[in-house]
Amino acid sequence: MATLQNIKVAVDAVVFGYKDKTLNILLIKRNIAPYKNSWALPGGLVLENESLEKAVERELKEETNVTVDYLEQLYSFGKPDRDPRNRVVSITYFALVKPEHHTIKADTDANDVAWFDINKLPELAFDHKEIINIAKKRLQGKLTYEPIGFDLLNTKFLFSDLEKLYMTILQKQIDRRNFRKKILSFNILEELDERVSEGRGRPANLFKFNKKQYFKHKKDGFLFDIK
Amino acid sequence: MATLQNIKVAVDAVVFGYKDKTLNILLIKRNIAPYKNSWALPGGLVLENESLEKAVERELKEETNVTVDYLEQLYSFGKPDRDPRNRVVSITYFALVKPEHHTIKADTDANDVAWFDINKLPELAFDHKEIINIAKKRLQGKLTYEPIGFDLLNTKFLFSDLEKLYMTILQKQIDRRNFRKKILSFNILEELDERVSEGRGRPANLFKFNKKQYFKHKKDGFLFDIK
Repeated sequence: MATLQNIKVAVDAVVFGYKDKTLNILLIKRNIAPYKNSWALPGGLVLENESLEKAVERELKEETNVTVDYLEQLYSFGKPDRDPRNRVVSITYFALVKPEHHTIKADTDANDVAWFDINKLPELAFDHKEIINIAKKRLQGKLTYEPIGFDLLNTKFLFSDLEKLYMTILQKQIDRRNFRKKILSFNILEELDERVSEGRGRPANLFKFNKKQYFKHKKDGFLFDIK
Repeated sequence: MATLQNIKVAVDAVVFGYKDKTLNILLIKRNIAPYKNSWALPGGLVLENESLEKAVERELKEETNVTVDYLEQLYSFGKPDRDPRNRVVSITYFALVKPEHHTIKADTDANDVAWFDINKLPELAFDHKEIINIAKKRLQGKLTYEPIGFDLLNTKFLFSDLEKLYMTILQKQIDRRNFRKKILSFNILEELDERVSEGRGRPANLFKFNKKQYFKHKKDGFLFDIK
């Protein structure tokens, strides 16, 4: 095997969180060159004997103190000049978390960590802006064929919260009547007895996602589909 | 940057071809260890200054003499022990070709090259069986939301050829009447004046895929969808 190749392998993570009714991304402020003091995706080089997923989990834990339940591989970025130091191929992952369940804290290569509204991102290091754009498209796509929206909402939510989440992430208006009819027809939500009022409206019932029911339906051939 | 990391970066290609009414994959017979004389996906290490896509194109050309029009990144495989020599992360791609348009010829690391029916694959080197399984799932998925089936058929085809292709790749029966109605409603096929008979049936008209029309529809918001 040719030993002349000197390409490094890194992982980077796009962690999405839904917060204050906006879609957010977890970023760290780099404390090493290049792009020192720039905001960037959490990530770093893969250690010799760890799997790619373990590398992402380790970097996230070290740089942001966030532990994720679920990681999905997004895409690999390998342009020869994407890192000014050395050629680095980055294998990227994305995750969905509920920001209020995590206490973020910077460490190792990061001297700060924060959630940023995806529509108000700062200047980013490397090709991280491009990576985020691809992750956003993947998230928008998945939202229409998998019930991942519930991973971003509180356990108990108003139906209007779910509508708002879809409109925010898909960046378009939805036909509320059809949306409600469709979602309820899937029979994967539990309507609770608890009621809360939002703004000046009448109190409305809270809902809960019934994941067990969803997997049961899925096994029977049901397709979640909000197009 | 840590210089201790000694992970190599390779690319591998899953090239699909539709041939004799079966879904085929292009494989090479390795002439170097490990897995010498085993069949494997075409691929190899990325050169220092070439993009990942260029690396796939070069390896395909060198090992199989096949030139592809379109490559799509599939997934990156990085288990620490997937190559017995050294840790190698493989970034995999898939492509669709019409086998009769290519004269395959082995060279460099390959001492043979051949098309294999996906249901009759030989023993494969490394984790290439797993890579093919993931590529097959991706192809099955894409077939339902993009008109990629036409990239696998002859330019002129019978409607029954298209039906057969869908049934072969999706590995299930389709409701022929609904399928025909749906596909024709998309208004992306041209029915030609040429007629041919298949088997003992009545002569039937040939069709052609109108790619220009498809892209026009797509721009207007049309979604190809065969579920």
